[in-house]
Amino acid sequence: MKNGVKKVVLAYSGGLDTSIILKWLGDNYGCEVVTFTADIGQNEDLAPVKDKAIKLGIKPENIFIQDLKEEFVRDYVFPMFRANAVYEGEYLLGTSIARPLIAKHLVQIAKETGGDAISHGATGKGNDQVRFELGAYALMPDVKVIAPWREWDLNSREKLLAYAEKNGIAIEKKPGKSPYSMDANLLHISYEGLVLEDPNHAPEDDMWRWTTDPKLAPNESETIEIEYKNGDPVALNGKALKPHEMLDELNKLGAKHGIGRLDLVENRYVGMKSRGCYETPGGTIMLKAHRAIESLTLDRGAAHLKDEIMPKYAELIYNGFWFSPERVMLQALIDESQKHVNGTVRLELYKGNVFVKGRESKTDSLFNVDFSTFEEDAVFDQKDANGFIKLSALRFIIAGKSGRKF
Amino acid sequence: MKNGVKKVVLAYSGGLDTSIILKWLGDNYGCEVVTFTADIGQNEDLAPVKDKAIKLGIKPENIFIQDLKEEFVRDYVFPMFRANAVYEGEYLLGTSIARPLIAKHLVQIAKETGGDAISHGATGKGNDQVRFELGAYALMPDVKVIAPWREWDLNSREKLLAYAEKNGIAIEKKPGKSPYSMDANLLHISYEGLVLEDPNHAPEDDMWRWTTDPKLAPNESETIEIEYKNGDPVALNGKALKPHEMLDELNKLGAKHGIGRLDLVENRYVGMKSRGCYETPGGTIMLKAHRAIESLTLDRGAAHLKDEIMPKYAELIYNGFWFSPERVMLQALIDESQKHVNGTVRLELYKGNVFVKGRESKTDSLFNVDFSTFEEDAVFDQKDANGFIKLSALRFIIAGKSGRKF
Amino acid sequence: MKNGVKKVVLAYSGGLDTSIILKWLGDNYGCEVVTFTADIGQNEDLAPVKDKAIKLGIKPENIFIQDLKEEFVRDYVFPMFRANAVYEGEYLLGTSIARPLIAKHLVQIAKETGGDAISHGATGKGNDQVRFELGAYALMPDVKVIAPWREWDLNSREKLLAYAEKNGIAIEKKPGKSPYSMDANLLHISYEGLVLEDPNHAPEDDMWRWTTDPKLAPNESETIEIEYKNGDPVALNGKALKPHEMLDELNKLGAKHGIGRLDLVENRYVGMKSRGCYETPGGTIMLKAHRAIESLTLDRGAAHLKDEIMPKYAELIYNGFWFSPERVMLQALIDESQKHVNGTVRLELYKGNVFVKGRESKTDSLFNVDFSTFEEDAVFDQKDANGFIKLSALRFIIAGKSGRKF
Amino acid sequence: MKNGVKKVVLAYSGGLDTSIILKWLGDNYGCEVVTFTADIGQNEDLAPVKDKAIKLGIKPENIFIQDLKEEFVRDYVFPMFRANAVYEGEYLLGTSIARPLIAKHLVQIAKETGGDAISHGATGKGNDQVRFELGAYALMPDVKVIAPWREWDLNSREKLLAYAEKNGIAIEKKPGKSPYSMDANLLHISYEGLVLEDPNHAPEDDMWRWTTDPKLAPNESETIEIEYKNGDPVALNGKALKPHEMLDELNKLGAKHGIGRLDLVENRYVGMKSRGCYETPGGTIMLKAHRAIESLTLDRGAAHLKDEIMPKYAELIYNGFWFSPERVMLQALIDESQKHVNGTVRLELYKGNVFVKGRESKTDSLFNVDFSTFEEDAVFDQKDANGFIKLSALRFIIAGKSGRKF
Repeated sequence: MKNGVKKVVLAYSGGLDTSIILKWLGDNYGCEVVTFTADIGQNEDLAPVKDKAIKLGIKPENIFIQDLKEEFVRDYVFPMFRANAVYEGEYLLGTSIARPLIAKHLVQIAKETGGDAISHGATGKGNDQVRFELGAYALMPDVKVIAPWREWDLNSREKLLAYAEKNGIAIEKKPGKSPYSMDANLLHISYEGLVLEDPNHAPEDDMWRWTTDPKLAPNESETIEIEYKNGDPVALNGKALKPHEMLDELNKLGAKHGIGRLDLVENRYVGMKSRGCYETPGGTIMLKAHRAIESLTLDRGAAHLKDEIMPKYAELIYNGFWFSPERVMLQALIDESQKHVNGTVRLELYKGNVFVKGRESKTDSLFNVDFSTFEEDAVFDQKDANGFIKLSALRFIIAGKSGRKF
Repeated sequence: MKNGVKKVVLAYSGGLDTSIILKWLGDNYGCEVVTFTADIGQNEDLAPVKDKAIKLGIKPENIFIQDLKEEFVRDYVFPMFRANAVYEGEYLLGTSIARPLIAKHLVQIAKETGGDAISHGATGKGNDQVRFELGAYALMPDVKVIAPWREWDLNSREKLLAYAEKNGIAIEKKPGKSPYSMDANLLHISYEGLVLEDPNHAPEDDMWRWTTDPKLAPNESETIEIEYKNGDPVALNGKALKPHEMLDELNKLGAKHGIGRLDLVENRYVGMKSRGCYETPGGTIMLKAHRAIESLTLDRGAAHLKDEIMPKYAELIYNGFWFSPERVMLQALIDESQKHVNGTVRLELYKGNVFVKGRESKTDSLFNVDFSTFEEDAVFDQKDANGFIKLSALRFIIAGKSGRKF
Repeated sequence: MKNGVKKVVLAYSGGLDTSIILKWLGDNYGCEVVTFTADIGQNEDLAPVKDKAIKLGIKPENIFIQDLKEEFVRDYVFPMFRANAVYEGEYLLGTSIARPLIAKHLVQIAKETGGDAISHGATGKGNDQVRFELGAYALMPDVKVIAPWREWDLNSREKLLAYAEKNGIAIEKKPGKSPYSMDANLLHISYEGLVLEDPNHAPEDDMWRWTTDPKLAPNESETIEIEYKNGDPVALNGKALKPHEMLDELNKLGAKHGIGRLDLVENRYVGMKSRGCYETPGGTIMLKAHRAIESLTLDRGAAHLKDEIMPKYAELIYNGFWFSPERVMLQALIDESQKHVNGTVRLELYKGNVFVKGRESKTDSLFNVDFSTFEEDAVFDQKDANGFIKLSALRFIIAGKSGRKF
Repeated sequence: MKNGVKKVVLAYSGGLDTSIILKWLGDNYGCEVVTFTADIGQNEDLAPVKDKAIKLGIKPENIFIQDLKEEFVRDYVFPMFRANAVYEGEYLLGTSIARPLIAKHLVQIAKETGGDAISHGATGKGNDQVRFELGAYALMPDVKVIAPWREWDLNSREKLLAYAEKNGIAIEKKPGKSPYSMDANLLHISYEGLVLEDPNHAPEDDMWRWTTDPKLAPNESETIEIEYKNGDPVALNGKALKPHEMLDELNKLGAKHGIGRLDLVENRYVGMKSRGCYETPGGTIMLKAHRAIESLTLDRGAAHLKDEIMPKYAELIYNGFWFSPERVMLQALIDESQKHVNGTVRLELYKGNVFVKGRESKTDSLFNVDFSTFEEDAVFDQKDANGFIKLSALRFIIAGKSGRKF
């Protein structure tokens, strides 16, 4: 029997793996197990979770099931989209951004129930273990972390199934269950494993669970209008929506039109490359829309500074450093820039494409055709450009006159 | 008569505006005019240019017409694409990257012909004047620059036409000529003006000259294969191509499948926002393909450093600082990273979309499924993650134990 | 007579140059002139300024003389020192940081008095014109700017003196007046011109007006203690001081011990290099002290992020972009980091040197010898380093095993 | 007996700790031990090292003692100083930069002698273990690493001494031996431990081994002249010197004048803060001199780009990532900038201070007083500043006219 843990809060999905962990924790640590199951929009039926946990011996008062969809989108997804965060040029961080939220609630429940440890079902080679644990340590520095995948010897599918059988854990065979390793929440679904382990092998058509195949998407495009306030989308086609409702609606629209599929080889924080496929229908629309409203309302210096710090911000989230002073500092910088990001964007959705059809801000537009037209105007004397260019070039002129060559 | 210029080299397109400038230069500066016309893939018939120039009084030996397509793609476009350069999240810098090339040749011809000045037809409110002139000053610090748009009073369409008529400059009325202000080269076409001056007004369907409307693009997708060597595409579907041939072929493919349209509000270097539409069919494919081959072959540290410096690199090109020490330094950094960017990318083109279907590098892949799979392997001991996470978290743990809160 | 200005607010020092400008403005623009003179610690007697202005024909109600020392240090100097801002590795931005303050008050007075223009005495080749004018335009976009040095033909000392004589402007010959071009405020004095125009020529010993020559400074060192609160110094040797009192005291201490002399070739924003000498006694102490208290209380991620953005922040201030969205965004990032920068630093001052002798934070220290000693401790299992290093190295190991060489 | 290692190359200093490790390796791994001792200017007598190793049972052909001073300074120290690298605002990276060199030679000897492992005496809480091991893995991905401090239970001074006694390892009691934990090489000496473990406790005067106490340094200053070529110092007072000779001479000069002492709390890569004191006499002079010659010869864009990337470059070296693609890429950028960094710097050394007294470059100066003086010149029309400022301010003007407020 391992020592040192009295009560552990487990991130429990109700699935086979975390059910095995639940059992294994009790058997190996002899500690009380508290389960935490969050609805973050993964679109699974959580009703049976309580029964499953009880069946595995968890006391009812130790079973926590919470709907975190609003908190997730409001406090994590939207702040991240204010930054136009993209990892390695393409990935919208769908898994990464959910992990600190789970960590926060694991810790919160531990504090409420007198727990001294948390546990999760992430493997020892992935990013998620890091994201869970960095978050937990940041919020509860004394917490103990049990990561069974790094401890046990159930390191193959066969051993897991054998353990489940031995311990009376039901192995459900849902018809149509995906054979891929998946993660899902209101922002995205991800797929790993099987044929994806060859980066030269395209995914099977039937892997994708959420979005319509662009080729089978409607032949008619659909135009929508999103209203932004302080950098966040607040109304869709004129209807005010809460953050999670907004993302939900955009997901439906994006999914219908085959938007947001991504096939990627990425660099994990733990050091190796991995290949994943992602569906982020609503997020893909939001990124395009946010850039469009910013293009109209954000000062150039602000916009370029945001672009310069974005890769670092995205990397911090990918690597699990949401609860770090540097992410909070960057967020302060980003949020400061969003005061004027107000207005409306019109988008056309069509077979995988998101086209900007218009953007407008009655209160905060910095676009004024009078200044950009080539004809005369009151503000801009074209002769000013002489001096602007001459002084911008001065260091080159001096260098050239000093004999320096390109 | 203005003084101080003996011989000026004019960037001459053969069109109305630069024909007027040609005439105006002689009339106002009393100097000899040399014309320079470059074929950079703008897809216009340059045959009549010589006759036009002669008709306007230019001596045959002062007329320079050069095919720069290969130099353009090899020495400007490809180096830029090694950086995955994108301005303000979306713009592929199609106009920006051509200007320093023109500047270089203007200066070169000035040096060869004993010219002391250059001239161009860019207006006083745009970026192009800056790009031409910074390049010229960097390469010939004593050069004089004549920018008629900033000098003359022909600041409306009417005055221009009147001047042309008065000076016997033919005003061609090409049937089907676009009413938009356009720029074109092998990398892209841009559109400005007219309805685009309202950023909430979508462009008319018939504005686009190059790419098929995605909705009218083939219902059958097309899969292609691009081979990369040191970060540059070198073969298409197994056939080796020179840089400009490659871009030309990718343009045809992209155009056919409705790829590369962009509708953007952007921040000009001279300080105001402007709205433009762009078609960059081949470039859009290349960006996707280059990221894909890098995803397989580039080290994470290299990739992230590239992403961090990219916005600055793109800004330098946009602003006209191609011939600057800092752009050259960044290029050295980027090029250093591309030694191992070798391999093949398979892409599917479909109605505006570019989907990655596979990537492979026989010589330089850093992807190895043995390291990323969750099962055991020889290199990676999952227990190593314990220490990795614990030390990554240590500063948070210490802060938390010292009483600091998030 | 030039047109278009009704009432201009002039940054008026009372010296010869701005007295000439005062006169010249009336003569050339025929407009009412308002003078603004600020005490920002330049240590000049401002009492005669009012009389001088009246003598030159300014109405008493148009003469503004204000003590801005507290505002200067509290709202400009201290926020900048939170960033450890240094331009080009050495310059503490003493002139740069005062200009936006002046611009702000010029504009404020213009608004109060119904003025439509501002004017200043900065020359057409320097940075200060940019700093004044960018600030003014940012705060009052319709403002007109009159920069006489860029307009008039009084472009030599002789012509200036002749103009003064002709217009009855008294040319004071203060005994001991410095022949150098100087700028002074509570943060620093700068010197330009004369022998300094040869960067290989050291300044004369008698150029320096503020600090003791280090060689003549006391042979006994002096130890002081500065207390920090939220990143700002608030008490000296146990005595609470207001911001400008603090800087004043540190200046006296620094000056006494020969601290803060700098001899620099720098890159001006307008494109050329210039050579200046600076005395920043108190600022030099504050930079050292602030870094010391941060070293104890700031998280590593926060500290490194601050270091990474600092050069850009310093460049913005140097170039005159204090009132820009991007400076404000960076300030938000910096200020967010300073909540925990509390504690006390002990420094020894000796003949040009500032030595840190100790730093302590009862509330916010992140230093704990138990974690850094090589002996055992509760938090840190040395074996954790195995995994930390192994995973940090993993990408190199994989690359190496894939045949990649350094 | 631990398994899996046949022949290990140990970084052997000849001191007590690595002698114990030498013995312990044989006893615990039963493997052949090869010793490697490098002279990198630590100024210790290496003559007895061979005898010691033989006495501890090492075969003569397994004892490697090499003078790496030239390689160290030429290939590591100088490239780093081209970047003006400083960690956390103050630390000149004296220890950090030596570790990859040692790692490189450990690996090289392992390859030559058929070794399969390397070992070192760095503890499990410090940075050096990371630096050694990252370097080793990068250069020899299959290498095994033995870090005894992380494995054994000799985790106190007492246990170590007991082990030494038991195994007949001589414990020398050198008179005057420093009680601090020290590291020394041609670039610096560092001190840790004892009273330094309280960051509020100043070091004892007799801790410093290299530099004169500034208060006891000569009352007469000394002026020296350093010539730079491509960013590296190549001659001192007119005499050409090899890299290591140069650093050696500058060390003597700096030490004599009390230059280069530093007392610092720093953030270790492994997550905690530690306090160290450093002496870097020659390096302190070189940093000042290099900045001075760059100030005259480096373009502004190049200089600012260097400053922006420097913190990342310094962090990479501090953290042990010398042999990483990103450090190599940054080096390419830095080295590209140094072509024109040629000329001579004159410095005055006095009681802890390094004052620049002049800088000159006959071939590469970009300073020209004609451009910076306020009087008229041929290149710069002061009126150009109008347009320069107006267009730089345009985005603020437009924003202000659109109603946006600061």
